[in-house]
Amino acid sequence: MEKLFLSYNQIHQTVKEIAGQINADGYSFDFMIAIGTGGFIPARMLKTFINRPIVTVGMAYYDLDDNKMDAPVITQWLDDPINQIKGRKVLLVDEVDDTRSTIGFCLERLLRHDPAEIAVAVLHNKNKPKSREIPTEVKRYYSGLELEDRWICYPWDADDIWEQDRQAVWSDPPEKGIN
Amino acid sequence: MEKLFLSYNQIHQTVKEIAGQINADGYSFDFMIAIGTGGFIPARMLKTFINRPIVTVGMAYYDLDDNKMDAPVITQWLDDPINQIKGRKVLLVDEVDDTRSTIGFCLERLLRHDPAEIAVAVLHNKNKPKSREIPTEVKRYYSGLELEDRWICYPWDADDIWEQDRQAVWSDPPEKGIN
Repeated sequence: MEKLFLSYNQIHQTVKEIAGQINADGYSFDFMIAIGTGGFIPARMLKTFINRPIVTVGMAYYDLDDNKMDAPVITQWLDDPINQIKGRKVLLVDEVDDTRSTIGFCLERLLRHDPAEIAVAVLHNKNKPKSREIPTEVKRYYSGLELEDRWICYPWDADDIWEQDRQAVWSDPPEKGIN
Repeated sequence: MEKLFLSYNQIHQTVKEIAGQINADGYSFDFMIAIGTGGFIPARMLKTFINRPIVTVGMAYYDLDDNKMDAPVITQWLDDPINQIKGRKVLLVDEVDDTRSTIGFCLERLLRHDPAEIAVAVLHNKNKPKSREIPTEVKRYYSGLELEDRWICYPWDADDIWEQDRQAVWSDPPEKGIN
């Protein structure tokens, strides 16, 4: 599968565009929930454009020996989900909607606590078969870029960040919706 | 105060150097605790070089109207600190050691739970008076760069990331210990 290398600046620009979508849509949320660890960097960038608190949740699909597990294990959750979520407007943030297993899992769990609304924001949505539907309660879904099924190489995974930048060939600033 | 603009790539490079310090020092920790929200991006970068789980803690010094509060309020903590920390080796990660109030506060709280060891990693340590000492139990302290008291402009706070890059004038890759 063809690799798509992205620079930090391209990601930052994409986050800025997501913020623009959210503001244009009039969605005023109380706080973000960043899915760890992929959502940490996008959520922190988004806070610059829409200043709201961030809490995180963590999920692991690999054990300490790096073997893939059948079901995700929650490694961190909200301290007091009932009181934190009930009646609040939330934005769930992750880097990519791939098979949607993580985002779907989180949405189902969070919806049990009666939020006023939950929306989703991802840097990248891959146009591919998904293992879960977005629950019907979720009315707002923001993606920075809609992509074909590509191997996305995020800058934070780079060993040599200067080489990553050389491979990230998108125009500056990137165009929306490039595959 | 003079501003120091940093690019994402410079930060990534600094994190790589911190990972080198940790490995050279032989500190093998079980997991990271990222202090939110400043530690989110450094911790996620560090995971690329030293692959360990990340949990986060959150602290707020400003209320929702952006007024500075006298004491920090914990907005997120570990789910099960006693069992997660007791007897484990931990790395506490934040972006900057400024007055040390946040890092000091976290260290004191975490030490109550009897870790085998807690170490600290920050991108930048400012050489200035600190409001707290590093507790004597903490034997390892890693900083990517030792700086005079400067106004550090982190890339994730930039509205225009391309302009931020133009202002970030450090050599590529940056030299260690530049003021």
